Amino acid sequence: MMEEDTIDLAQYLFTRLQQLGVQTIYGVPSDFNLTVLDYVEPLGLSWAGNANELNAGYAADGYARIKGLSALFTAFGVGELSAANAIGGAYAEYAPVVHVVGTPPRSAQKEQLCIHHSLGDGNFRVFSEIASRLTVAQVNLDDPAHAADRVDHALRQCILHSRPVYIELPTDMVKAQVPRARLDVLINRSPPRADEEVTKRCVERIVKKITTAKQPWIIVDGLTSRYGASAEVNELVRLSGIPTSTTPCGKGIVDETLPNFHGVYAGAIDTESNFAWAAESDLILRIGPLDADSNTFAFTALPDPGKTITFYRDSVEDDTCGDEEIFQGLQLQSLLRALVDHLPKPTMQMHQQASPGKPRGLPNPVEELQKMPLPREHDLIDQASFWPQISKFFRQNDIILTETGTASIGSRHLVLPRGCKLINSTLWLSIGYMLPASAGASAAQRELNIAASNGSDNGNGTGIPPLPKGRTILFEGDGSLQMTVQSISDMIRARLDVIMFVLNNNGYTIERWIHGMNAPYNDIQPWRYLDAPMFFGAQKNQTHDLYPIYTKRASTWGELNDILADPDFSRGKGLAMVEVIMDQHDAPETLKKLAEASSKRNFGG
Amino acid sequence: MMEEDTIDLAQYLFTRLQQLGVQTIYGVPSDFNLTVLDYVEPLGLSWAGNANELNAGYAADGYARIKGLSALFTAFGVGELSAANAIGGAYAEYAPVVHVVGTPPRSAQKEQLCIHHSLGDGNFRVFSEIASRLTVAQVNLDDPAHAADRVDHALRQCILHSRPVYIELPTDMVKAQVPRARLDVLINRSPPRADEEVTKRCVERIVKKITTAKQPWIIVDGLTSRYGASAEVNELVRLSGIPTSTTPCGKGIVDETLPNFHGVYAGAIDTESNFAWAAESDLILRIGPLDADSNTFAFTALPDPGKTITFYRDSVEDDTCGDEEIFQGLQLQSLLRALVDHLPKPTMQMHQQASPGKPRGLPNPVEELQKMPLPREHDLIDQASFWPQISKFFRQNDIILTETGTASIGSRHLVLPRGCKLINSTLWLSIGYMLPASAGASAAQRELNIAASNGSDNGNGTGIPPLPKGRTILFEGDGSLQMTVQSISDMIRARLDVIMFVLNNNGYTIERWIHGMNAPYNDIQPWRYLDAPMFFGAQKNQTHDLYPIYTKRASTWGELNDILADPDFSRGKGLAMVEVIMDQHDAPETLKKLAEASSKRNFGG
Repeated sequence: MMEEDTIDLAQYLFTRLQQLGVQTIYGVPSDFNLTVLDYVEPLGLSWAGNANELNAGYAADGYARIKGLSALFTAFGVGELSAANAIGGAYAEYAPVVHVVGTPPRSAQKEQLCIHHSLGDGNFRVFSEIASRLTVAQVNLDDPAHAADRVDHALRQCILHSRPVYIELPTDMVKAQVPRARLDVLINRSPPRADEEVTKRCVERIVKKITTAKQPWIIVDGLTSRYGASAEVNELVRLSGIPTSTTPCGKGIVDETLPNFHGVYAGAIDTESNFAWAAESDLILRIGPLDADSNTFAFTALPDPGKTITFYRDSVEDDTCGDEEIFQGLQLQSLLRALVDHLPKPTMQMHQQASPGKPRGLPNPVEELQKMPLPREHDLIDQASFWPQISKFFRQNDIILTETGTASIGSRHLVLPRGCKLINSTLWLSIGYMLPASAGASAAQRELNIAASNGSDNGNGTGIPPLPKGRTILFEGDGSLQMTVQSISDMIRARLDVIMFVLNNNGYTIERWIHGMNAPYNDIQPWRYLDAPMFFGAQKNQTHDLYPIYTKRASTWGELNDILADPDFSRGKGLAMVEVIMDQHDAPETLKKLAEASSKRNFGG
Repeated sequence: MMEEDTIDLAQYLFTRLQQLGVQTIYGVPSDFNLTVLDYVEPLGLSWAGNANELNAGYAADGYARIKGLSALFTAFGVGELSAANAIGGAYAEYAPVVHVVGTPPRSAQKEQLCIHHSLGDGNFRVFSEIASRLTVAQVNLDDPAHAADRVDHALRQCILHSRPVYIELPTDMVKAQVPRARLDVLINRSPPRADEEVTKRCVERIVKKITTAKQPWIIVDGLTSRYGASAEVNELVRLSGIPTSTTPCGKGIVDETLPNFHGVYAGAIDTESNFAWAAESDLILRIGPLDADSNTFAFTALPDPGKTITFYRDSVEDDTCGDEEIFQGLQLQSLLRALVDHLPKPTMQMHQQASPGKPRGLPNPVEELQKMPLPREHDLIDQASFWPQISKFFRQNDIILTETGTASIGSRHLVLPRGCKLINSTLWLSIGYMLPASAGASAAQRELNIAASNGSDNGNGTGIPPLPKGRTILFEGDGSLQMTVQSISDMIRARLDVIMFVLNNNGYTIERWIHGMNAPYNDIQPWRYLDAPMFFGAQKNQTHDLYPIYTKRASTWGELNDILADPDFSRGKGLAMVEVIMDQHDAPETLKKLAEASSKRNFGG
């Protein structure tokens, strides 16, 4: 092949990532990936240069949840194992992260040499075997003839399954030549085509059920967005007018300003009237379910299968006719579009009028929030008042991240303006995830905002129009912040815009409620959290033109409201930290009830 | 069984750990291990309560290298994967760490429920399968009838192999009843008995070789200490008078004040005269070898097999008779003792006199250091002067830790007083390890010092007399410190005594020398390192009776010498940090040569 017909493998890999919307590369340099990093900036990509690999992996996860794909570059062995928890989380919660591992030269691997960063036994396969438990595809770019193929395969699997993949890149393969022309054909990001005949039968069945149902109910769960069906689900909810609830994982997918949106259904720990209403529903449409204990209020929010039709990525399960029937070979997006097209007008009008005024119907969160009394100036900030009230600080298209613990539980009481994205963890629940994830989300949001002002699509080649500008807002616990605090350094280095609420309740309050309310192991070392920006090298006396730093503390609602009203804080430019002091024994009611249940389950206590 | 005949499984586990010298428990609480942590303090153990699991794992590794065993408690899934890099390192470098993972109740696992902290697929075996790649034994305490057996088996394997083991403890098993009487029989920590006949033949062979050799040479490598043979090797070196070198991994095992100790042999990058001397040696005794590229100067320090007898944990390989002969069923400690007993006096006297005065003999590091010119007041601190000169700051029985990078490479030029321990990494090379490891080493050292003042043994039941009091001294790089900085919080929380040299050379200098001398990916965010103690919650204006905090910066030898001479710094009480400013392109000569070689190897550059 002539020189101009081929390009370096590293350039091929990065160009593919760019074609799929990746503009920031996460990771940490190592002697086995240095030369590949030479390609990053010349190709117009940004290198995050994270302080450690776990934070890099978490940031890549947060970025992927906004942009639809992300890339993480580490050393093999030491570097990748430091990121293992992040990759496991991306797998558990369906975040499409491409993990590229720089490995020793092929000759050293072939000779099974005892090379640093290995276990010393000459086995260079052990780490990819570990990765095979945490990723949906693993490829080794150890052969120039197949390298480009393998890159494309891994990227396709990552997008298709919305889960992490693992790519080994030996140091001596970085400059291997691969055909340039391959890049002219974009990687196919669309799911397999649906079986039209089955789709037709399935839609007819569902329409019939809906039209005959007295009290139908839609439950939108988190995998809906992983399957790329958020827009279609919102159409269904809006047009059908059917009362719609969500789950902790699904929160943020449905437009919460719709009159027939009724918030998170909390099963056994929900109000008696909601629980009763749910029990009376005679048809439940469950979309994109994630049936984890932590997403179903210890499985008590799961509806009666005999009344339920469940929508998966490529199948629908209907248990409402006594014996379960499964429709295979579907495709969720096209199925939902077809369903919307075939819903009979009268049914829709009926529900449009019925809800929400209907007697003993589910409550409407927007109305509930309006009814709620305002806290007084000198009131201490407690969990019960904080979570609903803070919703008033949000604006359209904000990205809101709530760390596992009191924040993620509390976030179920948030009321989100249109276009807001909520990132929380509902299965993996690894504390420390959310701070780096907010750095990734903020970088992704900045890229989308730039694309928006250029009027281009959202930068991932999907043609989906970009969001208008929003802010990145993080709710972080003190114990969680300590796990991954270096991410604040990563934020400052990349000049990321983040509004950070640090909820300081002096330790692991969620654990206190599960077991050991006053046990020393639930205490943490008290830090001077607001000193973080200066410790991590932020410039003193930042002018607003540069990268502004804002730090304040609030214990009362008066203090907090002053901060929320301060444009220097609320505009979301630079790094804005507010330390919110809360009692170490205070928790959202939901958490108290959940903790009681989980404590019983774990310890029979 | 009657109540008093049995105890809770958790109490059994912790008591076993105590019997083996473990007094500090590392880890992070989680809803799946909270009730087990209830046993820690009532049993008189200390809970470290680390800021995150990776730091906990690294600290446990450092503690194990001093005390001979350590324990790490994490959640399954999230918690254990965060510690995976630390466990991999403990496996690669032979640190005996017991990793106890709190898992969901057996019922939930049996029913394959979708439980938080899992991957959501109902598979609860995936993490132990991952652990099986990084540990020498894995047990699941899911059966009361076998739980105590399995605990004992795992602990025995951990000690025998000096490598990590993995224990699963379901939350509902914490209070399972196991026989109390088992605890009266201590776990056997001694290696399998040697075959006396083979030992005899092997010793005769080696003695014959030594007596006929013109220029014998001992190379002591790092696994010698992992096999528990440090004392025996020192006897051999001292009594035989045979010229002795060490490796990067072996440094610190041999008493460096012995006249026949000649420092680290650096193979191809050593001086011409040393290289020539090594080539002329006609008998090499290699003890406890770790033949990693990073421990053998890219394999160039490996001696000619035809002249070499190699000592492993339970075998000896003799290649000096043309064809290799292997003696199996040995035991290194008893073999070395027998060898010392059978060395003929005349041979020993001959070498005692011969070395080190012998023409073209290897240099003696103590004499070299004395000959070296002192830096002047206004000289900037460079790597070439820093490493040898700083040796004068050390005292007997100090524990010295040198982080991977310029510090570990530079540490090869240190000259250690008698009884000093050196902890460095020579195979795994995970930057960020050494800061938490120094926290673990300091805790272990405090326990040994307390044992010493009580006149008891070193607290691990070995009867080995304790060390007199020494200090814990860390040499840390700036890039490395950023990886695991939360350990400084762990130090303050536990009031650990650590002297910390933070070598600030503005980025990943070791990587710069391998590739990308001025590449942005080798830069890091500049922190205000000396603000760390205050950020992490140290008390302001500490009096000396409490936990003193000392922070200063030095760019010149004058500034550094003032700090080294300040008793508040040198006594090693509390947390003493000195930030040593060095040029970002300055590196030990050794590193420059090594980097050149490794760059060639990796990138064919």
